[in-house]
Amino acid sequence: MRLDKKAIYPVQEWDITEQSFERENNYRNETTFSLSNGYIGTRGTFEEAYPFDIDTGLEGNFVNGFYESEKIRYGEANFGSPLFSQSLLNLPNLKETRLYLDGEEFDMEQGTVEDYQRVLHMKEGILSRELVWHSPRGKKVKIKIKRLVSFEIKNIMAVCYEVTPVNFSGDIRFVSRLQADVENHTRKTNPIVDYGPFGRKLEPLQLFGGGNRLYYKGMTQNSRLVAACGSSHRIFTEASGVEVPGIEAPGVEASDAEALNVEIPDVEVPDVEAWTESGELDAALTLQMSGCEGRKIVLEKMICYTTSLDMREDELEGFVKKTLDTADRLGYRELEQAQKRYMQGFWDVADIEIKGEDSRALQQGIRFNLFHILQSAGRDGRTGMGAKGLSGEGYEGHYFWDTEIYVLPVFVYTEPGVARNLLDYRYHMLDQARARARILGHEKGALYPWRTINGEEASTYYPLGTAQYHINADIAYALSLYLQVTGDVEYLKEKGAEILIETARVWADVGHFAENKGGKYCICCVTGPDEYNVLVDNNFYTNLMARENLRDAAAAVRYLSEKDPESFGELKERLAFSEDELELWERIIENMYFPYDEERGVYPLDDGFMTRKPWDESRIPEEKRAWLYENYHPLFIMRHRMSKQADAILGMYLHSNLFGEELRRNYDFYQEVTLHHSSLSTCIFGIVACDIGYYDEAYRYFAESARMDLDDHHNNFYAGIHAANMAGTWQAIVNGFAGVRCQNSKLRFKPWLPKSWEKYSFQLRYRDNLLRVKVTKDSAEFVLEEGESIRFCVNKTEVSIDEKGGKHIEKI
Amino acid sequence: MRLDKKAIYPVQEWDITEQSFERENNYRNETTFSLSNGYIGTRGTFEEAYPFDIDTGLEGNFVNGFYESEKIRYGEANFGSPLFSQSLLNLPNLKETRLYLDGEEFDMEQGTVEDYQRVLHMKEGILSRELVWHSPRGKKVKIKIKRLVSFEIKNIMAVCYEVTPVNFSGDIRFVSRLQADVENHTRKTNPIVDYGPFGRKLEPLQLFGGGNRLYYKGMTQNSRLVAACGSSHRIFTEASGVEVPGIEAPGVEASDAEALNVEIPDVEVPDVEAWTESGELDAALTLQMSGCEGRKIVLEKMICYTTSLDMREDELEGFVKKTLDTADRLGYRELEQAQKRYMQGFWDVADIEIKGEDSRALQQGIRFNLFHILQSAGRDGRTGMGAKGLSGEGYEGHYFWDTEIYVLPVFVYTEPGVARNLLDYRYHMLDQARARARILGHEKGALYPWRTINGEEASTYYPLGTAQYHINADIAYALSLYLQVTGDVEYLKEKGAEILIETARVWADVGHFAENKGGKYCICCVTGPDEYNVLVDNNFYTNLMARENLRDAAAAVRYLSEKDPESFGELKERLAFSEDELELWERIIENMYFPYDEERGVYPLDDGFMTRKPWDESRIPEEKRAWLYENYHPLFIMRHRMSKQADAILGMYLHSNLFGEELRRNYDFYQEVTLHHSSLSTCIFGIVACDIGYYDEAYRYFAESARMDLDDHHNNFYAGIHAANMAGTWQAIVNGFAGVRCQNSKLRFKPWLPKSWEKYSFQLRYRDNLLRVKVTKDSAEFVLEEGESIRFCVNKTEVSIDEKGGKHIEKI
Repeated sequence: MRLDKKAIYPVQEWDITEQSFERENNYRNETTFSLSNGYIGTRGTFEEAYPFDIDTGLEGNFVNGFYESEKIRYGEANFGSPLFSQSLLNLPNLKETRLYLDGEEFDMEQGTVEDYQRVLHMKEGILSRELVWHSPRGKKVKIKIKRLVSFEIKNIMAVCYEVTPVNFSGDIRFVSRLQADVENHTRKTNPIVDYGPFGRKLEPLQLFGGGNRLYYKGMTQNSRLVAACGSSHRIFTEASGVEVPGIEAPGVEASDAEALNVEIPDVEVPDVEAWTESGELDAALTLQMSGCEGRKIVLEKMICYTTSLDMREDELEGFVKKTLDTADRLGYRELEQAQKRYMQGFWDVADIEIKGEDSRALQQGIRFNLFHILQSAGRDGRTGMGAKGLSGEGYEGHYFWDTEIYVLPVFVYTEPGVARNLLDYRYHMLDQARARARILGHEKGALYPWRTINGEEASTYYPLGTAQYHINADIAYALSLYLQVTGDVEYLKEKGAEILIETARVWADVGHFAENKGGKYCICCVTGPDEYNVLVDNNFYTNLMARENLRDAAAAVRYLSEKDPESFGELKERLAFSEDELELWERIIENMYFPYDEERGVYPLDDGFMTRKPWDESRIPEEKRAWLYENYHPLFIMRHRMSKQADAILGMYLHSNLFGEELRRNYDFYQEVTLHHSSLSTCIFGIVACDIGYYDEAYRYFAESARMDLDDHHNNFYAGIHAANMAGTWQAIVNGFAGVRCQNSKLRFKPWLPKSWEKYSFQLRYRDNLLRVKVTKDSAEFVLEEGESIRFCVNKTEVSIDEKGGKHIEKI
Repeated sequence: MRLDKKAIYPVQEWDITEQSFERENNYRNETTFSLSNGYIGTRGTFEEAYPFDIDTGLEGNFVNGFYESEKIRYGEANFGSPLFSQSLLNLPNLKETRLYLDGEEFDMEQGTVEDYQRVLHMKEGILSRELVWHSPRGKKVKIKIKRLVSFEIKNIMAVCYEVTPVNFSGDIRFVSRLQADVENHTRKTNPIVDYGPFGRKLEPLQLFGGGNRLYYKGMTQNSRLVAACGSSHRIFTEASGVEVPGIEAPGVEASDAEALNVEIPDVEVPDVEAWTESGELDAALTLQMSGCEGRKIVLEKMICYTTSLDMREDELEGFVKKTLDTADRLGYRELEQAQKRYMQGFWDVADIEIKGEDSRALQQGIRFNLFHILQSAGRDGRTGMGAKGLSGEGYEGHYFWDTEIYVLPVFVYTEPGVARNLLDYRYHMLDQARARARILGHEKGALYPWRTINGEEASTYYPLGTAQYHINADIAYALSLYLQVTGDVEYLKEKGAEILIETARVWADVGHFAENKGGKYCICCVTGPDEYNVLVDNNFYTNLMARENLRDAAAAVRYLSEKDPESFGELKERLAFSEDELELWERIIENMYFPYDEERGVYPLDDGFMTRKPWDESRIPEEKRAWLYENYHPLFIMRHRMSKQADAILGMYLHSNLFGEELRRNYDFYQEVTLHHSSLSTCIFGIVACDIGYYDEAYRYFAESARMDLDDHHNNFYAGIHAANMAGTWQAIVNGFAGVRCQNSKLRFKPWLPKSWEKYSFQLRYRDNLLRVKVTKDSAEFVLEEGESIRFCVNKTEVSIDEKGGKHIEKI
């Protein structure tokens, strides 16, 4: 972990705790405490709905895939420049719940707050806040609020708001609001773009309150998508004098019993007066009752979101109603139980435990990262995963290659179903990618967009956008890894082969066998992962990944031709695929060109890399060093020999089986020239450092990655998480320290233990197995927790475990 | 000339004639008949102010250097992206003059038009229109209108409008309008940009009519520049029954005699009733009188434009008044005489005469081109020359390198004063160029903007804009040529040295001695002239021109250090110039890197050129071939091995003394890969073709260039002239056929006569001499028309002529 960064939150193994509310940390903490289930995302804002300005906070509620478009203006547009933007749209807020004690409004910035703590319970997937408040007029009240975004029902967020008057009896009033006058903070969260959505973009179609419910339906101005949301409310109280553990049952005394449509069981409920009001852009439900000193009152609030991406517009209202009914029936406690069960299942497989010096802080960092990764991934096959998940508006909520190269491998080994869902999203976007390939001049194949929500290219600056053709190979890589690790042949047949063939076709068209490079296959004018070396020829990473994309596609074609000629014949016909293409692919695979520096024995980043001007950091004022694009013209950056992030090195990691002792030379070379100005860089260097035995460095890189977001190293956590780096931390341990690779359908380990640690352990799913791995000072222990038989390789040892519970211990 | 293109206008030696008015040709013809003096530019629109739509016409009146700014929006802005646009602004129109015959309005689209002809008199610098009109009600009238934009008084445009009732006597009424509700046609004339000025951008500050005058003053909304303009009107008539040759005298019977402030001399003037009206954005002067059958009535109208770029805002009104007074005093005829004298002087030196097959059409093309070049150049030292002169709104009226590489050499040899004025403009913009160099990360020196009006970069797309660093060397080249041809040492001292040093400094910083290229000096990530090969390393043209820029700068430093150490010492101090810099320059000059293809023995366009994918034109549908950027993504274009225009070849022409027999190999190579999609290409290939004896090709290229605009080869002449190609035609003959070069301060010729020609002749100014050159089948004849002594070289012969009128004949 970075020694110059103090831990922002107390070091705890499973929790993240905020010990006091401070306005200046609010914006960042909203991201820390954001909750999501891959469908709904909500920032860690407060029920009191404090009026933060654009620099101090952002109420944010998002639905994965739900975006607004704006016409993009360019200084000078190019053919193929996207004409419409896509921005994850900030949706109406239903969390707002104000509390009044005899008319005095609960406000943490008035009166006094005692015993405050807000906790992200990562183990349970729940956010809680507890405090004691002394009102300016002397009332004292205990407040506890819990919130979850349900993994059980993707459309549901649930809140449980408990109030206990400590030194008074009197009126207790909740005002729960649906606030639809919301807008994105584009200028702040994505300052580099100059298009909307500015201002409110949802036009209300319906907005009303009735009984214990609030409901809203609205349409975006340009993308014409419809969002619907609603909330349901129930109040109950402790039986007098008797402590009620948790929430017993629903209960509300509504002014309009029919509208409620809730069964009111035979439990103690307070007398509640309830009424609704609605304006043009908001609606409120007021719930008023008498509170007794020492007696807890509980408000259970269920919030539902859905959109026209999932159903017809006329079904939305009924769906919201039905889903709220279901949630009400389950009640908060049941949802919380379900949440805990889900999380338990996740951690059982995905958790990495470490022991040793520093380990508690690192442990916390790892879990924080895994927790947010889990939260971020779309899991309905129609949505992907934003570079910032659903935790904020950064990068406009776009999906990038981060998903496939950084995040997906984590799910492949821990939650392969989620990995498949993410691949499904890409499969469903093939038609848009085909259209994009035509725009780029390719007569066949598909070219995935560099950044997107709806499958169309949304990058407005092609040198750092569309030119990153490697996205195609990145997707193919993740798919191939998924297939190798899961052995899911059905997926290959149904969807995988089509993705592999269509991506490969673009590689077979974009380059050519260049005479001046000995007839080798060259790919000109692309941008690799490294965003400081732009529009280059023969980017090493791109050429490598392209070749492997072609190789995987060719293998798929051969495999399916043999194993399932009939159904594959249909695919071939549908894609007008000819054997000539396969021949061309083979020639390319055989003859791919790679830039090589004879003298140093390294692969330069691209053809021009060694010719660029050496970077002289001393000429860059310190405050500008990490912000080159903000302070220097792109031409200045591009003419210098330096690298923003792992690029060639990343390729050598992903296909490490193809590299031998030159890896160290390359690492040394790139170590010198890489500035690590991307959050996607250090974790990869750490992994390769392990490969070549640079363990100290590996550990340093890992520690840097592990708490990058938790300690806000990049000072921009307010805009959302850095999902790629978060997943990179998992990879740094599993693929780095433990040396896990699955290449040529072979699982292998090369375990190493950092010297300050006693041990670490993790699980991997591989085919139908679950393998537990524990690495200690002297040995690596492998236990087959699920499944009957597994084969793998540890260092040079071939291992097979052939019964459930079987174990192998390898000295290291 | 292109055989597939029929001449649009009759082939005439000195005139361009439109024989009928056709709406569908109007927009193009407005450019053909545009007039300018390098300060005011006015399109060839009609006095009747027909209401053309955005596809058929554009009333356009411009003042060089007068622009409006708009905030530019980018999909994604970069550091250093210009934030404000500059657009040559369309100014209020004062040409409008409607004619009413007994209330019937003259309109060429009503009634019948006979004997129509509109003629651009290139010899005289005047535009005339003559016709006989039969009104729908049967009136017959002869109309003759002449127009000039004065080379004598830069602020004056003059119109002489003659009306002769043929078959009636009755009321004749002129309504002369000042129309300030004007706007640019940005969407049409520059479709590629997506910023303003959209809509009217001038806010009126003053607008009134009084006496025989109309006056307007207005300020732009954003650039806050103020334009003022006015018109003055006088009527006279033939003495009854007596033909008056031309215009005798001023005359008007005004309603407000004092406001006129015009002396009314003792000549026959008609009884004229005059009154003015003004609205918010227009003002009109009506002049009504009785017309007699057969008796000509003449309206003389003087129009004046000036702006706050030339004086304080409070001086504008007085200046317009005074200038109109002066113009009135001179009268149209005197201004016309002055115009003819000026033009005579120009043609005496600049004209190229040719005799032979095809020669009349080519002759017309050459003169058309020279005429527009002459019109286009700013000559006040504060203005440059737009790529489209002042003939239209194309390219937003921006100045590019076209001026220095294509146009300036023509003036250097024919009107060196104008050449100096254009260099002065660059000198005055040095501070802006210094600021720009800092933006690009250069601690010293000046980097000229790729496109500009006010000296700041206005290119919104840096790969085709700011990346064209060669602009620096282009300016230095033109300066150096000026110095060599004129021998103007004073200019070197006062301004030239500063330009050379400041431009050179950027070259000395942008590159480095690259280890992997044998320690040679490499320049990465620039765009050469070729706009299809973008952001390349070691562009041949750029490296060559940069080296020569450095060489010229070093030579200037050494020369002035020796000849004028004192004043040069001051400059060195002001620029903080050190001897170390000179040493570095010398090292770079010695070690400049050039890409070289050993096998072919040619200089590729850049390091990556030979690696790109061969261009397969057959894959490009014919209708898209000439419009690649409109139909293909930049990445598609950039990844292919082909060239838009002369690039390396241009460098080899400009510095032909440095190349030997490899020139032919290079020509052959580039001939294959060049698409000539720029109007700046063919003229250069033609010149180099002469150098290497490819005479047929040279002639074909020349013919292509000569009538490119006159026959609208690019179908976009409506948006304005292609000034560079126009000047390129002159170069094609003088530098091409006659092989003129001035390198190392040595003038040389290598004359050749196209085989279908009998002869051609032209003049050159060289130092204090004027040399007439005539090339015939067997010989080249040189006559020293002015000056006492000249030395030059013809092929391998050293020639000197040592008396005025002296002659040398060289057999060829």
